[in-house]
Amino acid sequence: MKELAIIGIGQTPVGEHWAVGLRDLATEAIWAALDDAGLDGADALFVGNMLSGEMAQQAHLGALIADHAALAGIEAVKVEAACGAAAAALRQAVLAVGSGAAEVAVAVGVEKLTEQPPADTTAALAMAADGDYELPMGLSFVGVGALLMQRYLYEHRVPKEAFARFPIQAHDNAQHNPHAMFRSPITAQQYADAKMIASPINLLDSSPIADGAAAVVVTTAERARRLSDRAVRLLACEVGTDTVALHDRADLLWLKGVERSTKKALARAGKRHEEIDLFELHDAFSVIAALSLESAGFAERGCGLCHAQRGDFGRGGRLPIATMGGLKARGHPVGATGLYQVVEATLQLRGEAPEPLQIPDARVAMAQNIGGSGATVVTTILERMEG
Amino acid sequence: MKELAIIGIGQTPVGEHWAVGLRDLATEAIWAALDDAGLDGADALFVGNMLSGEMAQQAHLGALIADHAALAGIEAVKVEAACGAAAAALRQAVLAVGSGAAEVAVAVGVEKLTEQPPADTTAALAMAADGDYELPMGLSFVGVGALLMQRYLYEHRVPKEAFARFPIQAHDNAQHNPHAMFRSPITAQQYADAKMIASPINLLDSSPIADGAAAVVVTTAERARRLSDRAVRLLACEVGTDTVALHDRADLLWLKGVERSTKKALARAGKRHEEIDLFELHDAFSVIAALSLESAGFAERGCGLCHAQRGDFGRGGRLPIATMGGLKARGHPVGATGLYQVVEATLQLRGEAPEPLQIPDARVAMAQNIGGSGATVVTTILERMEG
Repeated sequence: MKELAIIGIGQTPVGEHWAVGLRDLATEAIWAALDDAGLDGADALFVGNMLSGEMAQQAHLGALIADHAALAGIEAVKVEAACGAAAAALRQAVLAVGSGAAEVAVAVGVEKLTEQPPADTTAALAMAADGDYELPMGLSFVGVGALLMQRYLYEHRVPKEAFARFPIQAHDNAQHNPHAMFRSPITAQQYADAKMIASPINLLDSSPIADGAAAVVVTTAERARRLSDRAVRLLACEVGTDTVALHDRADLLWLKGVERSTKKALARAGKRHEEIDLFELHDAFSVIAALSLESAGFAERGCGLCHAQRGDFGRGGRLPIATMGGLKARGHPVGATGLYQVVEATLQLRGEAPEPLQIPDARVAMAQNIGGSGATVVTTILERMEG
Repeated sequence: MKELAIIGIGQTPVGEHWAVGLRDLATEAIWAALDDAGLDGADALFVGNMLSGEMAQQAHLGALIADHAALAGIEAVKVEAACGAAAAALRQAVLAVGSGAAEVAVAVGVEKLTEQPPADTTAALAMAADGDYELPMGLSFVGVGALLMQRYLYEHRVPKEAFARFPIQAHDNAQHNPHAMFRSPITAQQYADAKMIASPINLLDSSPIADGAAAVVVTTAERARRLSDRAVRLLACEVGTDTVALHDRADLLWLKGVERSTKKALARAGKRHEEIDLFELHDAFSVIAALSLESAGFAERGCGLCHAQRGDFGRGGRLPIATMGGLKARGHPVGATGLYQVVEATLQLRGEAPEPLQIPDARVAMAQNIGGSGATVVTTILERMEG
């Protein structure tokens, strides 16, 4: 596989985009990324998206967006892995350029979740779980998260309030990110008073549904050096999977997909945990943040919260997470999220994160996009490219 | 990109599979292919499927099927390109092995369309067209085909009966294919009397919805030589796209995506049209068969039917098509179809097609999978591997 780099990034604000359609959102991100790269086209387009059929009656999204983005004719396809779709699309772009099949590939993640009534959106999102065995039991996707959180509280005997650290920190970061959905801080008291959604998950444990699109341009490291002085090396983008249904897992509190994907990515990148300067993790629910940190090897089992309490994962800590607000506060347009993470990590490595979010001298970043409750996990490792 | 080969193929019968679910069908095809290859696992799984969300409330199909197929943990993702999904999944397997990211990748196409009431299935299939502009006009997917056929009749001034050749020949072949859905011949009189579906498309112009799964195992040509004496060289698998909506096309009777994909595939394979010994085309409607032959360069514009009448595309003709029954008579489980085509082409090149369907001394085969009315086209070229 060839050595790769990201030479362009683009994103729309995350929020409720009533005025524009799926293809418009995607096109905005694609052209922001191509413009950023100084390019006027690409060889291939990989579209990450979860629910275009259910939300917008579109089941031919690759070609649809390629055409609307004035890239008609090029290779284009949709990639779906529930909420892990966007990074899975990046993985295909990596394979396309890594194999030599494409010189320049664009990965875009796009989702419009405010298109339909909330109850329909909730029902559609639940399909990230097992439609044959879990949904007939009445499980929603927040319900899946609630089962995990309940088990976490029981097994690790931690106080519920300890989870507050994750959303508080996410909101604190998001207020400085112009693309974030929730740009106001929250307090521990607000967390304690937050409305219960699916016990024990309250409103502030849960990331919001949203609309948005984010894109990156991938090419070879060799070409990147010629084209750009802001390129970022794409060291690894690796997929690990696990069972979709919770009842098929021997251990609810260990995300095997996270472990597999992280290990593969670190090995491919030739990096150790200590070398990661920031971690854009998949904090769809605050319990998933804790489980991700533990299963990825950044905290011992059951100790994600204690490390968080010590400030390990804040700005200035040993491993800053969700540096632009994460899923919780930047927002979670599901099939786009994985590329928001990669765009944000790239901004950090370029030294272009808005103050005070910039991690000083960030050299290596990890982004991890999770589908469902851990059944598809895509871990991307990026490195600053030296002059 | 490395040189590649197909070392295993598997397929379920096409039909109405009431007794089994999506994951069971896919698993059957995957393990038929792995057994055929003499392997007990793979590094990556690419799942082609169009409507798992709408038909079965499953929006996490890659991981779901990997787990059910006892491949849990491996890279797995769903690829969607409307009815072109299966060959698009093969394309991702090609990129995975071609890049060196995987040694052995499985591409499986799977669809269950009899899961829901027919009206819901019809509505879901329409999403292969443009959900924003075409569907609100009341267009169904057969309606899209009808517009194309009407235009073909008008512009090329051919008699409607001339199209009968395609379905008659498809049924004639399918009767010898044990995996085909319709295993009985039809006559010109039956075609003339067939019930109108969406004028001018009648019941026998139209491929049937169905359930089914087909899979292939892809590895490097080098490894294939060591592992198997029945491997088939995978010379090319190339994607071309076009607008999704018909109203965006300057010329309704020229499938630009077909032209682009065919040219790319022939160039990649280093083959000329005359070297193709058989063509598994995408005869979703009989007019699509004619347009495919013309846009791919196997017949002059407007002359697909005259060549067909002369027997050019029958068994013993210069370019046999739909040699196992095609979409029309083998059946069209949409997101699986592209891999049925590749499985059938592989059987031909191995000399394992059931008699009298075997094309004598077939050396090079082309399979072409079309999404929608030509917006995504994937063309695969295979060659017999000499000992």
